Amino acid sequence: MQQVYLDNSSTTRVCDEAVQVVLNAMMQTYGNPSSLHTLGFAAERARETARDQVAAALSARPEEITFTSGGTESNNLAVFGAAKARCRRGKRIVTTAVEHPSVLLPMQQLEQAGFTVTYLQPDSTGHISPQQLYDAVMPDTILVSLMAVNNEVGSILPIDDARAAIDRAGAPALLHVDAVQAFGKLPLRPGRRGIDLMTVSSHKIHGPKGVGALFIRKGVHIQPRTFGGGQEKNMRPGTEPMPALCGFGAACAALPDVQEERKKIAGLNTYLREQLANMPGVVINSAEDALPYVLNLSAGRVKAQTMLNYLSERGVYVSSGSACSKGAKSHVLTAMQLSPERIDSALRVSFSRYNTKADCDAFLQALQEGLRTLQKA
Amino acid sequence: MQQVYLDNSSTTRVCDEAVQVVLNAMMQTYGNPSSLHTLGFAAERARETARDQVAAALSARPEEITFTSGGTESNNLAVFGAAKARCRRGKRIVTTAVEHPSVLLPMQQLEQAGFTVTYLQPDSTGHISPQQLYDAVMPDTILVSLMAVNNEVGSILPIDDARAAIDRAGAPALLHVDAVQAFGKLPLRPGRRGIDLMTVSSHKIHGPKGVGALFIRKGVHIQPRTFGGGQEKNMRPGTEPMPALCGFGAACAALPDVQEERKKIAGLNTYLREQLANMPGVVINSAEDALPYVLNLSAGRVKAQTMLNYLSERGVYVSSGSACSKGAKSHVLTAMQLSPERIDSALRVSFSRYNTKADCDAFLQALQEGLRTLQKA
Repeated sequence: MQQVYLDNSSTTRVCDEAVQVVLNAMMQTYGNPSSLHTLGFAAERARETARDQVAAALSARPEEITFTSGGTESNNLAVFGAAKARCRRGKRIVTTAVEHPSVLLPMQQLEQAGFTVTYLQPDSTGHISPQQLYDAVMPDTILVSLMAVNNEVGSILPIDDARAAIDRAGAPALLHVDAVQAFGKLPLRPGRRGIDLMTVSSHKIHGPKGVGALFIRKGVHIQPRTFGGGQEKNMRPGTEPMPALCGFGAACAALPDVQEERKKIAGLNTYLREQLANMPGVVINSAEDALPYVLNLSAGRVKAQTMLNYLSERGVYVSSGSACSKGAKSHVLTAMQLSPERIDSALRVSFSRYNTKADCDAFLQALQEGLRTLQKA
Repeated sequence: MQQVYLDNSSTTRVCDEAVQVVLNAMMQTYGNPSSLHTLGFAAERARETARDQVAAALSARPEEITFTSGGTESNNLAVFGAAKARCRRGKRIVTTAVEHPSVLLPMQQLEQAGFTVTYLQPDSTGHISPQQLYDAVMPDTILVSLMAVNNEVGSILPIDDARAAIDRAGAPALLHVDAVQAFGKLPLRPGRRGIDLMTVSSHKIHGPKGVGALFIRKGVHIQPRTFGGGQEKNMRPGTEPMPALCGFGAACAALPDVQEERKKIAGLNTYLREQLANMPGVVINSAEDALPYVLNLSAGRVKAQTMLNYLSERGVYVSSGSACSKGAKSHVLTAMQLSPERIDSALRVSFSRYNTKADCDAFLQALQEGLRTLQKA
């Protein structure tokens, strides 16, 4: 059977470049980077090569990269670590209602601990406006956390305005950006844009699962959450996840040119939108100016899970909302105030550089058959 | 050049069984286990197979296994999670002075938060006596955390007496056992021994780095430290480190019979001890009844780092203390009150199932030459 994988915002296949490096880390350079012998030194060098590769992909300095177990740990570390480091200067935090649960749930914990969190609400296309940020950031705001690109609908959030809002308010806030869905797909350069903390993950860019990083801008201090053997300058101790970590570096090095790749994906996205426009009952939920890697749509009166099953049986893999929500009602589409029918039937198509027009056609054909079959039933 | 790897308590080479499974998780079963399509379900099954394999190695139920990023995270989760869950019932904690930093440093954090921590001191062979536990555990002790086997000298700690001490005191304490160095080398069966929480790690048993587990006995509740997408029953959210996680399962399944293997390793250990007895200036720091996988010795008047370099240049890899301490003075040997000379010259030889008598001979020869050359200098 065909396998058409259009769920790349959930996770990606590991690219060949990364696979080779993972193999090497398991069988050859298998030493502990903390060991003071040849095998340990080789592992340490492999780790630093990976750090250089991740840093290069972010136009950051290697010493600004802290490896973690993934996006969720990076987000938790950023949010809790910033709040703990700055709690004497204020108790106010600004975030959005469309963040990933690994930002939203730590925020709820901080509310229980006495912080006041403002959740900016998106409009019906998933946008947060610059004005919302200027209105929300106060002189005693200590943290602003917003994602660069929303994982469910692809909307691009106004990071630069978040920095400007902090500066205009004269707030002691750190700016954290969850860039899991943007990394490798938008030019990020956090250092030049006044971003203090940025979360990235390996497995969304064809690296292995189990590793991510937190960019911590030079001179910025946050509190660690894990305590142990001193690895990652005490910010995230524990023996490093070497195979995945080295694979992450290789996946960063293998990233194609961001702008060119985006053009190619935009072509697929436009093609899909054009074709979907001809299908009665299909509505696009992603904004016109969303990142083209993500296309959220609602398909007729068919429940998302029913359609997912139908597509999956035909070897076409997409998702309903995010993988993490696992069938629960999307908090993003709910915040966008879409109708219950649109939320219940929402599908997310998400591209990677390995997708082709043929994949789009396979999806379109299966979707059309699905609509015909399932709406009749 | 020969490669004689005798630093298996720092980390191990990934076994072939695990390598195959890691490869498959990267290239075939690469879906997100939370994705609701065929590829997601396949990943979910792979994760549950691994959970079954880890559970089987611990004679535990699969639902008692929570996957983490490794031993350090498991220890942090156990110590902080238990303290937070039980803090209303008391503020007293008992541990030992020879724990891994990933237990000791969280304990220091808890002291700052108002807990009273008793650190049991070892004798000169690294032993903690049952009586020390009976004396230390009070009716308001809420956590007892001790390692099954010490990572630097191999001493076996009295876990069963910890349980008995808790019961005798009628304490509400949870019993946490850091079994990173014992897993696969001693029969553990935490459920039958009244152990509530047990830390194990993949990369000490020929699985990949970047994954571990916390056994949480059925009915025991602790507080999570990470918040996000709900994975691992909300105890440890974040997309699972699938390649390493599946490799961990395979490494568990590939573990040889614990008792037979221990006999073989005991043979190597005894051989090494006999030969070392003939080397003037060499003193053994590990107790006679220590786990045979670890042999700590002090070699003449040669600083450990100097000897490590000498051995490493000859392809013989051992460590000074633990890999994590990275050249810092061993807190374990210090707690054992060894002389500064013995501490400064301490080496740790650590075996795995792949070691042979030839490895011992290579080490002995290089050590002897090293002593001759370096003590003259």
